[in-house]
This record gives sequence, C-alpha cells and structure tokens, in this order.
Amino acid sequence: MTLTRIQRAAQVAGKSLAGRDTPFIFNEWYVAALSREVSREPLARTILGKTLVFYRKQDGGPVALSNRCAHRSFPLDKGTLVGDHLVCGYHGMRYNELGEVIEVPSQASCGGISIRHYPLVEMGPVIWIWMGQPEQADPATIPEMPMLEDGWVTSEDYMDLKANYVYLHENLLDLTHLSFLHANTFGTPDYARADFDVQISDTRMWLKRYVMPTRLPPVWAKPTRLEGKDAARITTSDFVSPALHIVHAEFYDLALAESERPDQRIKTAHIPTPSTATETHYFVVHGRNFALEEGDVTDFMHQQLMAAFQEDVVGLQQQEILMAAEMDDNYFEISVKSDAASVAMRRYIKRRANEEQGLITTDAPASSTAPTAPAAPATVGNIPVPV
Amino acid sequence: MTLTRIQRAAQVAGKSLAGRDTPFIFNEWYVAALSREVSREPLARTILGKTLVFYRKQDGGPVALSNRCAHRSFPLDKGTLVGDHLVCGYHGMRYNELGEVIEVPSQASCGGISIRHYPLVEMGPVIWIWMGQPEQADPATIPEMPMLEDGWVTSEDYMDLKANYVYLHENLLDLTHLSFLHANTFGTPDYARADFDVQISDTRMWLKRYVMPTRLPPVWAKPTRLEGKDAARITTSDFVSPALHIVHAEFYDLALAESERPDQRIKTAHIPTPSTATETHYFVVHGRNFALEEGDVTDFMHQQLMAAFQEDVVGLQQQEILMAAEMDDNYFEISVKSDAASVAMRRYIKRRANEEQGLITTDAPASSTAPTAPAAPATVGNIPVPV
Amino acid sequence: MTLTRIQRAAQVAGKSLAGRDTPFIFNEWYVAALSREVSREPLARTILGKTLVFYRKQDGGPVALSNRCAHRSFPLDKGTLVGDHLVCGYHGMRYNELGEVIEVPSQASCGGISIRHYPLVEMGPVIWIWMGQPEQADPATIPEMPMLEDGWVTSEDYMDLKANYVYLHENLLDLTHLSFLHANTFGTPDYARADFDVQISDTRMWLKRYVMPTRLPPVWAKPTRLEGKDAARITTSDFVSPALHIVHAEFYDLALAESERPDQRIKTAHIPTPSTATETHYFVVHGRNFALEEGDVTDFMHQQLMAAFQEDVVGLQQQEILMAAEMDDNYFEISVKSDAASVAMRRYIKRRANEEQGLITTDAPASSTAPTAPAAPATVGNIPVPV
Repeated sequence: MTLTRIQRAAQVAGKSLAGRDTPFIFNEWYVAALSREVSREPLARTILGKTLVFYRKQDGGPVALSNRCAHRSFPLDKGTLVGDHLVCGYHGMRYNELGEVIEVPSQASCGGISIRHYPLVEMGPVIWIWMGQPEQADPATIPEMPMLEDGWVTSEDYMDLKANYVYLHENLLDLTHLSFLHANTFGTPDYARADFDVQISDTRMWLKRYVMPTRLPPVWAKPTRLEGKDAARITTSDFVSPALHIVHAEFYDLALAESERPDQRIKTAHIPTPSTATETHYFVVHGRNFALEEGDVTDFMHQQLMAAFQEDVVGLQQQEILMAAEMDDNYFEISVKSDAASVAMRRYIKRRANEEQGLITTDAPASSTAPTAPAAPATVGNIPVPV
Repeated sequence: MTLTRIQRAAQVAGKSLAGRDTPFIFNEWYVAALSREVSREPLARTILGKTLVFYRKQDGGPVALSNRCAHRSFPLDKGTLVGDHLVCGYHGMRYNELGEVIEVPSQASCGGISIRHYPLVEMGPVIWIWMGQPEQADPATIPEMPMLEDGWVTSEDYMDLKANYVYLHENLLDLTHLSFLHANTFGTPDYARADFDVQISDTRMWLKRYVMPTRLPPVWAKPTRLEGKDAARITTSDFVSPALHIVHAEFYDLALAESERPDQRIKTAHIPTPSTATETHYFVVHGRNFALEEGDVTDFMHQQLMAAFQEDVVGLQQQEILMAAEMDDNYFEISVKSDAASVAMRRYIKRRANEEQGLITTDAPASSTAPTAPAAPATVGNIPVPV
Repeated sequence: MTLTRIQRAAQVAGKSLAGRDTPFIFNEWYVAALSREVSREPLARTILGKTLVFYRKQDGGPVALSNRCAHRSFPLDKGTLVGDHLVCGYHGMRYNELGEVIEVPSQASCGGISIRHYPLVEMGPVIWIWMGQPEQADPATIPEMPMLEDGWVTSEDYMDLKANYVYLHENLLDLTHLSFLHANTFGTPDYARADFDVQISDTRMWLKRYVMPTRLPPVWAKPTRLEGKDAARITTSDFVSPALHIVHAEFYDLALAESERPDQRIKTAHIPTPSTATETHYFVVHGRNFALEEGDVTDFMHQQLMAAFQEDVVGLQQQEILMAAEMDDNYFEISVKSDAASVAMRRYIKRRANEEQGLITTDAPASSTAPTAPAAPATVGNIPVPV
C-alpha cells in the first residue's frame, strides 16, 4: 500500500530510533531485583535475555550466577543451597558464589569448570547488577536515586510488563498521556495542553511540564492538603540511564507567596530492566519529603500510584501486541513536538546498542555526559520528526 | 522418503494451486462485518492481515480505519468515540472518519498526520469493505447476493474459523463431503455418489449436483413438507468471488409434474473473509423464497444449518492443524474428478494473488469474466490432476 | 561475552554430539505404542515428526498409516473404521491396511492413490514400527527385551515427555543423578560417588556402577527383603539402540556368600520414541525375575518406579526449557568422567543422523556392531571432553 509523504519521511526517520528489535545495552547497571525478593530460596530471573539465579549467602550478601549448569544445562534454581554454595539438582555439581565448580560428585577433581557470576550492589530497597564486560563494572557509576537520601520516606514494588523496555522509557518521557491513559486515576484534562520545556544532553533527557492553575487528583491533593485549591503541579520526566527514569514532582498552593509554600515534593524511580525483547521487569521506588511519619499516607499513595502504573502496563502491552502484528514494511511512527525528549532518548539507546555491537564507531564516547544544545527535531510539514 | 509416481505428479501440479501460503488478494470487496456488529462501541478486527477499527458515526454511517495510531501504534479501538471522531487512548490524537488527525493535544497544529481509511458499503445485513488500491474501489463491482431481493426471508450469522479461507472455498465447491462430514446433520449417504456437472469460466466455478430420488434430511424436509417423500435435491455450488460463495438449492416432490411443483428454493451465502493466513471470518447469510411468514421455520433452519456449518469449521480446523504439521517437501494433494471446480478456483486465486504481487503478467485481465471452455483436468493414471 | 578456555574447548567438542537440533534416525525400529493403546478406535500419534494413525483389523492385527488423507489432508483418525478399512471423514476415500485407496465415492475408479503404510511388529506389551526405508525393514533387527522372556513378570506404562529424546538417553547412561534428582525416591547419597566401569563399542554403550555396601531404598529393599541390611546394588545402564535403553540391576546381601545369594534381578526397558524435536513418547517396560506370584509387589514397584521416572520427566523438561532459552552462540556443555558413555552415545547418534542425511560417508557401516576399544575421552585440564 502507498504511504503518504509524511508517513514515508517518518519511516525513514524511524530507522535511527531504538525499538523492539534493538539489541540490549550490556554495559550499564540495571536493577536485578527488589532486596526483599532475594533470599535463601534460589530465585530464577531472566535479565537482558540471560537466565540467572539469585540467592543470599549466610552473611546475607546477594549472589547472581548464570542459571545454567555448565555440565548439562540444568536450571540451578531447581538445585539446593548448602551454606554459601548452590548444588545442581541433576548431577550434584557444587558451585561457589563466584560460579566456580568446587565439587563433582562422580570424580575427585573439578578441573576449572565454571559459569559466569555477576557483580551485585545492594542499595536500599534494590539490588543492582552488572551484565556487561566484567572489567568495566564500577559501582561508582550506579545512578543515584535521590529519594533514598535522608529526609524521604519510600515504598517500592514490582510489575511484570509484557512489552519492550524502550516503550516504557518513552511513556515516561512524555506525560501528555496522563490526560488520556490515566483519565480515571492521576491524569487531568488540562495536563496534555500544559506548557513544557525540553532539555537534551548526550546521555540525559528531560521534559518539564507546568500545569497551573490546576486541581490536583486525589493521589496528590490528599497528602498535600491541596484539595479544592488552585494549585501548581510541576513535573519533570528525567531519563537518567537506560536502566532508570525518575519523575520529580512538586505541588503548591498558587494563593501562597513563594516564601510561604511548604516544600512538598515527590520523586518516583521507574526502573525498567529488560527481560527479553518483549518483556520487562518494571520496578518502582516511590518517595516523598513530607508527612514523613504518616504511614497511612504511604499506603494511600502507594496503592493509588500502582493502580495508575498498572494502566501503563496494560496500555504498553496493548501497544506491544499491535506492533507485533503490524510491524511490516509499511510501519511508521510520526513524532510530534512533545516527543522531542523521547526521540532523543530512543536515538541514544540505539546508538549505545550499535556501539556495543560494533556497528558504528564514534569519536565521542557514548557515555560522555557533556551537555550539548538540545537537538532541534527536523520537521515534515510542521510536525517534528527525528532525523 | 520416496513418493510414488502419482504422488510426485500431484506435488508438481499443486504448485499452481492457492493454499495456506498464498498472499491475500486485496483488490476485491470483502464482507468486513455483519451490520449488527458495528455500533458506537469501536470494534477491532483483522482483515487480510491488517488490524482495523470499525465504528458508526452519529448519522449511523459505518467507518473503518487502520487500528494503529500513526503516532505511537496504540490500538485506536481502546480509545474513545467523541461525536464522529475517534480519540486515541494514549496521547489523545483525534481522528476524523477519513483517518485524518484533526487535533494533537500537546501542540497547536496537526500537520497532515493521517492513517488509512477504508471504503465501506452497507448492504442489508452485511458491510462490504475495499482493502485494495483506493482508486479501484468501485461499489458497482460488489457481488450480488440474490437472497437479499424482495420475496426472500433471511437470517445471518458469524463464525471464527481457525483455518485459511481457500480451504473453505474448496469445501463448498465439492459437496461430496455431505455424506461424511455431515452424516449426522444434513448429509445423506447417496449424496457423494450423485451425478454432477461442472462449469468453469475464467473467474467463476460451479458444481451442480443432482440427488434424486432421495429422502431429505429434516432441515430441508420439514420446511418443504417433503418428509417421507421421494424428492429431488438439486444443489449448485457457485464460487462468485474470492469473498463470496453461494449455494443454491431446490427441492421438489418427484411424484409431481413439473408444472405442479411449488417453487421452493434455498440460497445460502458463505462469506469467507481472510483474517490471517490461518484464520478466517466466516459469515453466513441464509435465505428462502417460501414459508415467508413463518418465523419458527426461520429459527429451525438457522439453528440446523449453523450446527452443520459448525461441523465444517471443526473439520477445516482439523485439516489446518494437520497441514501445519505435515507441509514439508514431501507434501502433496491428489485431486479427483469432483475436484475439477475447486482446482480451477484454487488456480484462479493463485493467479490473482500472483498478479497483485507482480509475479506474472497476463494479456487478459484477471477480472475478465468472459467464459471459456471448462478446463479439462489432466490425468495421472485415471485421476484428474491440475496442470 | 567471553568464554573461558575450558568453555570454548567444550563448545568445539559439542559440535560432534547429538542434541535438540539433530535430525531423527529413521532406519531403526521404534516402539510406536503399547499394545493396549491400539484398538478398533483409530489413534493418532506423531512419530519422528510424522503424524500416523493406528488401528486394529478385525483379526486383531495392528495397522499404521500416514494420518494424512492423500486427497485433501484430512486427519484419518477422525474418520471411521469399517471392517479392516479406514474411511476418511471428509470426502470418504476408503483406505485398506496397506494405505491404498480402494474407493473414491464420487467416481468409479481409484487410480492408484495411496498413502504410506508402516510395518509393525507386536511383541508382548509393545508394538514396534519401522519408519525408515521400506526395503530395510527386517524384524530380525528388532532389539531384544530380555524381561519378556519366560521366568520374568512385567508391567508397562507410558509418559509424555516434552523434551528431546537424546537427553533421556543421556539421563539413563549416567545414574550419578540418582543421588540428586531422585533423592526423595530411589536415589541414595552414596550412589553418585560409587565406582563405575564404562564399555563402549561402535553402537552400544554401557556404564556399570557398583554401590556397596549400601542401604537400599524401599522400592528395592521391600521386594528383595533386604531392608536394614548392608547390600550390594549393581546397576548397568545399557544403550541398546536409539530406540531402547535397558537398566539391569541386581541386589544381594553382602553377608551372604556368593553361592547363597538368591538370584534377584530387575530389568527396566526405557523406550524413548521421538515425537518431535522437543517431545518424546517415553514407554517403560519393567520386569523382575523373583517374587513372580506376588501381584502386590508388581503394583508397589510399578507405582514407586513411575513416581521416580516422573522426576526424570520433570527434570528433563526443565532442562529443555533452559536449553531453548539459552542455546545461543555462547552455549557449551562441559563433560566429566561419568559422561564417557553418554558422550559416545551422542556422537554415535549424531553420526547415524548425519549418515542418513548424506552429510558424511564412512568406510565402516554405522550399523556395525564390531566392538572396539573404548574411546578414551580427551581432556581439557583434567576434565574429559569429547573430541
């Protein structure tokens, strides 16, 4: 079938954007699990397409190994944890926490059999993992989660998202969708039309939206005591890394002078860890810097937010199903102005993936964080499209 | 494994027959839905491999659009119908009935974004759609359904058939199977052995079968009051287009002179609309020209017929499963005399599909209806096979 | 990701081993069904990737035909058995027990239409089938099952194993796994560390294990009356053919002189018939040469053994799932000493499959049974690996 001129331009531009078929980026820290998920009971989880097994040593330290026994591919999570060692449930190969076989029951020696182990760093409610080249694993490069600092109270959760992780990042970088996908939870009709700023560096993308005056939905109005008031709702979508997106929000009563406003902020870490090309571990760590002692506020907000994020899960899964069916030679996506940050993000992820695959070389390292002028998206007609 | 000489000849001959792997024919009118299925509630349906959304405007007119939002591939049937416009449930793009975006909430202009819309023509209980090249959409080429004329009473229904549409056409063009697949419903043992005529033109294939004297099964005997009588049952299988097959049947008491026989005819439109290569929307419109005022006859025949057609659905699905498992280099199908019409039909569909794919050129247009001498099938041994 | 030197050597060595992607071997006798499964009710079963139909003639003789009607690929098992003939449920083609069509209802002659029939040989509780080149079907080459001789009592069963058959053979040729996979049924902790001998010919592989002194698990201790005694448990894993593995076991009281020991032996035929690359018909025929009159012993042992073999099914299916997910360019399996027999078996199956595919030629016929010196596995470090 024939595409229009705009559709064809969008199709060409789309080739530089990450999507369902983009290889994973390995040289990044990802969240592997919530701390509370890893215990003395071995846990199997697929991350970046690799099946891993997680457990805790007797001293509580977490361990991640390939879940595939080097001998005959039996899943190690079906084995037995003995002290700090995992014993395969098929022929009894015994692995230490470095993935080295230290016992082969049917013979005297072990001869250097091993599987891969993965560096882990536990930070508050989450456990980070390094899936990339071992010599590059530097805990100093784990991205910061500001809601874990003193003076904040947090809650966390996990969802299984049957869609590619890139589209969760895209979802978060343009909250226009709050007025539609979340019309029944924390969206309001004025959200989609509010002004916004975009900032783009080589590796980080922000979109800041100013909704004011507005009436806050219950999830924000109740804990901030701004019910029925003309309020400001200022939200920053912040792509921190392929493994982390943080939404920063502040709220205040427009009737109050700036000096009189209480400091009421929300920070929510959205943490998409790819499982496979079409499945993502979606972790959430949510924090606030007010009403710190009120446990019922924590419960109320947690429950309200997870209901809203579940709407994203449902929507992204519907999108995934449609893409799987329709992604043929005539496929295209047309971008608009509010996509500027997410288009930059998808180009960045694609470039990083290509670099790891050795498909392109660049003079500037992809991990450079030197800010540059925001890329002005090209336009077809008056619609911005990526170039 | 070695094939016999006949098997090998059949395998070669089979290469010219349409089947599970034949591309769809786009330049045809297909039935998209029963009229009663399309309402103010958006309906998603896949036709010829494309996912579409259907709805009715405020004036009742039906609309068909691509179901994929041009922006970020969200399924439009999950959105909201506002007046005559469909608003995407993700970022709020608003589409008119031509598939043009007329509002982008996050910016002032729309800049020519659009998706494809599909011409529809509503005729009685069904809605026809044109999936092909837009400039060729001519409602005058919609095939006629004679049971929709005055003096007939009709009923209609829909079944989901998990098999390729070609094999439903094949099923209908050779009713030999009534004695076996429908032994418990409207088949009789003498059906398979009855005399038949075949007529084949470039684009239309008939098989007419004369079962007489016979005893009619209840579905025909009761409404025609021919129970217990020696009757004639004359049935014509008529391939009208890749989208329509009509079965014409007449019944009469053999004890009556021709002038005394009441005019008792049945016409059933079998309407296979391809969804995917292995799934078909199977619509049925059934009509009779007698007992017009008797609603209980309508209900009786409808229920009896649908039970029989459900046997075809089950059988075709069993055939589909077996073909999926067995269609390897040794696959073959051996045709017999009663397949002459269906072999011609499968060659015609294959030729039409190839022409659309640009694989062959012909001097005579494929849509020509000029009748030709029926192709005499070649034979291997005394078995006719397509050549 | 980088492999270690040992992993890389194992990966190279693995290329000569049969596995999930190895073509089936056709020129072998396989067990198609338990005798009691084949009746006057047609039975569909997929063997070596081909769908077959089984039934019994009026004289009780079993018949196996291709399940695909030569006419239009309808599954013949959905048809009707009339006398010794199978009538297709679609258009009524009638097949005799040789797969020849002897009636086409819509025409007078049949013209040599046929499907393949498969030689069957019924021996006691099982029916053997020849799927290979018909002229090579020699019943004299059906492997012997010694537990079917006089003086033994047997029971038999069937399990559906959703894994490739090669790994069931591998499982059986190294019973090290009894201490782990069967820790709760018939394994004991000392099993994995017991001494063993290996014998390897061109076509047959044995691993004999001497567990003594040991305490027998209930399944063996009860019928042999060796509960609470220091016993010998001597087990031979015997790969007889790609279609048959026999486990021979003997038990005795170590306190008795050799001449005083009663002859108490167990022989269990494990019969893996490939259905597809990832599914196997797993038949078991179990026999003993003692307590011949005690039916409750038969029931007790049968129930205990099937519970244990079900652990193998579960484990092999877990292995299959992991292999399906992880079998990429970095896949490897590292073999140890107790794998010597199973590595030889996998090389033999691979070689046989390759020969049938015409990929290699050998001077020595693959079916030669001339014993050769056991192949000494090469080692990487001190780990034996196949070369």
